[in-house]
Amino acid sequence: MRMTFSVAVTGASGYAGGEFLRLALQHPELEIGALTANASAGTTLGEHHPHLRALAPRVIEPTDAARLAEHDVIVLALPHGTSGPIAGQLPDNAIVVDLGADHRLESAADWTTYYGGDHPGTWAYGLPELIRAAGDRQRERLAEARRIAVPGCNVTAVTLGIQPGVAAGIIDPSDLVAVLSVGYSGAGKSLRQNLLASEALSSAAPYAVGGTHRHIPEIGQNLRAAGAGDVRLSFTPVLVPMSRGILATTTARLAPGLKGVDAAELRAAWVDAYCEERFVEVLPEGQWPTTAMVQGSNTALVQVAYDATAGRIVAVSAIDNLVKGTAGGAIQSLNLALGLPEHLGLPVNGVAP
Amino acid sequence: MRMTFSVAVTGASGYAGGEFLRLALQHPELEIGALTANASAGTTLGEHHPHLRALAPRVIEPTDAARLAEHDVIVLALPHGTSGPIAGQLPDNAIVVDLGADHRLESAADWTTYYGGDHPGTWAYGLPELIRAAGDRQRERLAEARRIAVPGCNVTAVTLGIQPGVAAGIIDPSDLVAVLSVGYSGAGKSLRQNLLASEALSSAAPYAVGGTHRHIPEIGQNLRAAGAGDVRLSFTPVLVPMSRGILATTTARLAPGLKGVDAAELRAAWVDAYCEERFVEVLPEGQWPTTAMVQGSNTALVQVAYDATAGRIVAVSAIDNLVKGTAGGAIQSLNLALGLPEHLGLPVNGVAP
Amino acid sequence: MRMTFSVAVTGASGYAGGEFLRLALQHPELEIGALTANASAGTTLGEHHPHLRALAPRVIEPTDAARLAEHDVIVLALPHGTSGPIAGQLPDNAIVVDLGADHRLESAADWTTYYGGDHPGTWAYGLPELIRAAGDRQRERLAEARRIAVPGCNVTAVTLGIQPGVAAGIIDPSDLVAVLSVGYSGAGKSLRQNLLASEALSSAAPYAVGGTHRHIPEIGQNLRAAGAGDVRLSFTPVLVPMSRGILATTTARLAPGLKGVDAAELRAAWVDAYCEERFVEVLPEGQWPTTAMVQGSNTALVQVAYDATAGRIVAVSAIDNLVKGTAGGAIQSLNLALGLPEHLGLPVNGVAP
Amino acid sequence: MRMTFSVAVTGASGYAGGEFLRLALQHPELEIGALTANASAGTTLGEHHPHLRALAPRVIEPTDAARLAEHDVIVLALPHGTSGPIAGQLPDNAIVVDLGADHRLESAADWTTYYGGDHPGTWAYGLPELIRAAGDRQRERLAEARRIAVPGCNVTAVTLGIQPGVAAGIIDPSDLVAVLSVGYSGAGKSLRQNLLASEALSSAAPYAVGGTHRHIPEIGQNLRAAGAGDVRLSFTPVLVPMSRGILATTTARLAPGLKGVDAAELRAAWVDAYCEERFVEVLPEGQWPTTAMVQGSNTALVQVAYDATAGRIVAVSAIDNLVKGTAGGAIQSLNLALGLPEHLGLPVNGVAP
Repeated sequence: MRMTFSVAVTGASGYAGGEFLRLALQHPELEIGALTANASAGTTLGEHHPHLRALAPRVIEPTDAARLAEHDVIVLALPHGTSGPIAGQLPDNAIVVDLGADHRLESAADWTTYYGGDHPGTWAYGLPELIRAAGDRQRERLAEARRIAVPGCNVTAVTLGIQPGVAAGIIDPSDLVAVLSVGYSGAGKSLRQNLLASEALSSAAPYAVGGTHRHIPEIGQNLRAAGAGDVRLSFTPVLVPMSRGILATTTARLAPGLKGVDAAELRAAWVDAYCEERFVEVLPEGQWPTTAMVQGSNTALVQVAYDATAGRIVAVSAIDNLVKGTAGGAIQSLNLALGLPEHLGLPVNGVAP
Repeated sequence: MRMTFSVAVTGASGYAGGEFLRLALQHPELEIGALTANASAGTTLGEHHPHLRALAPRVIEPTDAARLAEHDVIVLALPHGTSGPIAGQLPDNAIVVDLGADHRLESAADWTTYYGGDHPGTWAYGLPELIRAAGDRQRERLAEARRIAVPGCNVTAVTLGIQPGVAAGIIDPSDLVAVLSVGYSGAGKSLRQNLLASEALSSAAPYAVGGTHRHIPEIGQNLRAAGAGDVRLSFTPVLVPMSRGILATTTARLAPGLKGVDAAELRAAWVDAYCEERFVEVLPEGQWPTTAMVQGSNTALVQVAYDATAGRIVAVSAIDNLVKGTAGGAIQSLNLALGLPEHLGLPVNGVAP
Repeated sequence: MRMTFSVAVTGASGYAGGEFLRLALQHPELEIGALTANASAGTTLGEHHPHLRALAPRVIEPTDAARLAEHDVIVLALPHGTSGPIAGQLPDNAIVVDLGADHRLESAADWTTYYGGDHPGTWAYGLPELIRAAGDRQRERLAEARRIAVPGCNVTAVTLGIQPGVAAGIIDPSDLVAVLSVGYSGAGKSLRQNLLASEALSSAAPYAVGGTHRHIPEIGQNLRAAGAGDVRLSFTPVLVPMSRGILATTTARLAPGLKGVDAAELRAAWVDAYCEERFVEVLPEGQWPTTAMVQGSNTALVQVAYDATAGRIVAVSAIDNLVKGTAGGAIQSLNLALGLPEHLGLPVNGVAP
Repeated sequence: MRMTFSVAVTGASGYAGGEFLRLALQHPELEIGALTANASAGTTLGEHHPHLRALAPRVIEPTDAARLAEHDVIVLALPHGTSGPIAGQLPDNAIVVDLGADHRLESAADWTTYYGGDHPGTWAYGLPELIRAAGDRQRERLAEARRIAVPGCNVTAVTLGIQPGVAAGIIDPSDLVAVLSVGYSGAGKSLRQNLLASEALSSAAPYAVGGTHRHIPEIGQNLRAAGAGDVRLSFTPVLVPMSRGILATTTARLAPGLKGVDAAELRAAWVDAYCEERFVEVLPEGQWPTTAMVQGSNTALVQVAYDATAGRIVAVSAIDNLVKGTAGGAIQSLNLALGLPEHLGLPVNGVAP
């Protein structure tokens, strides 16, 4: 017996929506239904995502809750603040996956501080590899979920890079520093001058410096789940001239009381944390992740070392922001919610060079 | 019943070999066997192609004909001049696919002029979409082949771009001009100074200018198959700062006797030529191909227009040099030779942005 | 005695205006006066051109003809169609340099066909190296000019690449083919989706294909000045992932009657044409121009070869679109009009890698 | 009266040597003499640095100490470990500028740990803006120097970014974290696979992770000069797809005892430190440095903020690695040693976009 699930995507003309469709086309049990958008309604998908040849002639419909409700799965690829109202009109038994930020944060206070306005509520957090120090495994939560909030792309990169050290009690989460090299697709299709190719080529450009980035509280939330008490994180994203990819360099001091850590022992903590994972891999000793290694794939690559002179652990993690960081992570969580094998339809190999 | 074919790849550490493996991993009927190389023997595949996580621990063996001969299919991903000697030691009933140049040219004289030395012989030409004005369809030839020569990547781009006009008698093949924007992976992993990132970033750099490129006679051979008499082609490749992709701009005058051509009629000739093709698509009117549209896919995109003021037709075609231009085209031809559906395991959708 | 000239720039926040200012800062006899713009009035120059540290605190004024008229030189860095009205309000004895298209074309019919509306008139053409088969040298015209129209950047690249062959009667201008690799700064700061970094990185993207580009009639005008009768040009620009630079590959058949051409003789025609030029250089035999070689400089590099098999000459030329293609060419012409040494303040060496 | 100084450059074919020549060509008092190299002797400079048109025909001589000794100034643009032997053969009264690492470190132990072998000695450190808590100003030292060691490019970026906080006693230097986005020209012309364009495009790639980079002890040396006691630095460089530029993100905790710091007060410490500097500028509030802003210039741009939630100061600094990070810094120091105005011949404005 084979079960096929219909999927509607709202916000189909953006990068997140397009990437979800790219992966859904490769998924054996997902059938792509309505594609909707607001400004782009009436145009073909080929005008927005000409690389998706199989869907190029499909016409984008105006977003309408009743139309979306005809599907087993509804994917919201919308700017933050706009998912809540639509989600409220969708049937309880449909699975709704939000690629945006609205339902990620558990703390209403964090929401108000970083996003402003009223907290739209918290959904099951779509990071199956999230380590939980207590309570249900994240996979169990997702298996029962009908509402899934897909993590922020930078959040996924940093969380996967550093959480094994938190869970193992090796690092001190109260003074983390993360600096990320990020590709431009993460900024979406907004027409802003700093996102023009002429400005971006030949430049490395930091933004949201000094603790203002909205992904900061979400990382704290994840690391607390993994066992951290107080989390303090200095977080700086740097746009670099590539389209896809996030390379996160996260450093941390050893946990109070630890005088040092053996290289093998340190690596073992990361390897143990991920040895059962299909999509998170600790590279062989001496090899460091690059974004090219994961381009187009749902893989996260991680490596870790202890710099005794500096007194800091450095963990480097690489993901494709649109796959593991957004649409791939979404499908992985969706697979769980649908009772399908978690890895179904998801590429583990990247496209390089 | 399901048939699975074992495949060995020699030259596995290079880009062409790596891309064949990436696609073979997605192919339901190919089973990857021995990976061999000379200089890289003893290393793991993960050292050369860290994006191919599923094969990362596999150890590369020294190239040995007897070992290769254990497989149903042997892929030669070797520099030109080196495929012939190995091919001669392989069993007749094995299918051998040469990603290199050794067995593409029919004319021994062309071989000697452009490559030097003795002509290694001619194999079935691995471009299923090649239009043949007379004799067997190219697909029929490939279906019977045990030896397949995969076309040069630039050759595929230009041939697919312009052959409908030749076959339809619309253009004059005696004065073609092709200028190509090409990505750096086409140059392989050779350690040459002009291929360094520091030199390549921010630069457009022509090479093999003035009629010296080895792909020129091969394009002539293809267009003669499509019905051209004398083919004369000015061919200039320009390296531009991208890793993958070829964008070929090919212009031609109208065939002698034609005074003009109606835009719809012109486009119809291209559309008709490719309407049955899965991997070659004429874009909707007004949309022009870019390399981003085909990145990672086996798709070739084409568009054509007539510039009455200039008196020239301009055809633009885009492919991923490593997929449709090399490893994807190889698998497409191999599918035919194996009696499998031609498109099996091949992506029609690209990875963008 | 030293003479210093005051310069106002209107449209100071755009790329052309910014580049003019960059070069003017290095010019010993130009003193930067009012910087004006419309939408950007009231902001500092540092918000638009943070690389121009010396002018960063300068406040942009609203554009006002009377204010501009206080200067010896007024530079118009405006979209086409907007220079004419302002120019009409400026004093006759001021030197006005238009970096836009309004006053380049001699033919009102060409203007109407390619730009639409009424022809704003023709100013002295700011390409000192333009070869004129008859009448005054271009430099003499510029020396007397009070109104200067700076050529289009693509026009400069193609004209300098091919005009020696036209002037020497070697090539046939009735069937030219030019394909250009162009950087994104040529498209200005327009907020259009195809100009976003996420779209541009990893892509080669043609535009204005099929004879619609506005630079086509201007190239014809130049080549006719050099002695061509009928000029027919197939012209295709391809955006490639770099910020600056144009690499033009222009091919042409031999002039009717010429059976062939000796390589040395061919090259000599180009060398002779430019041997007195400071900013146009024919590279040594065997070396081909790249855009990196001319980045940041006012130099145009050219190379030429005859491909006997194809029956076509191929000329490759490289310029920095913002320097020799716009602001550098402007200063060169302005120097002539001011009675200064033509090369004053202009860099001949590029910034590479 | 005008004094002109002759300059020889050994290692003229590399990027550092080429950039020194680019700047020397713009310098009013430097006259370029012998250009020497080993492997490249007998070739023209145009084969290595075709962007330096003014020197293109110059023939590179074999490196010979006697020939070098004919000049007022000798610039060593050589791999580390090779400057020492040549320097020993040069006259005491010549000014020798080492662009390599041999003479930067004061500590022989550091040299042996990070570079291996015997310490080649310590020369005057070529960073005029180095803050010295005690003793002579760095400028005074350079004014008397006959031997100058130019700092490492990453060292300059990090030192300029963070030293004001050290000198002002605001930050705690015992737990610094620096992550740098660096362009490929910093890696020189070494023919290594990871430096190929095909590998570099679309990738962010860390290297020397975990405390092994040779620039680490040099940064410590500088910050101790500025008043730090113990310096501990986690340092991770990330190669990103650009040719030039370093963007350093350096974070630090507040000095022990400081509970917090006012934003204005913090910025004032940086502004005060650099208010007299021509080549180091603190950007206006709210504007953050990018590498595009300093491309081609001798400018370092800096910005700083305090992230109270994270408890860390973050300082971002941008330089062009070949200019302020190498050849521009060299000329600045050389100007001091020659008794010329420090800024002579050095560009403060960059080349963008």
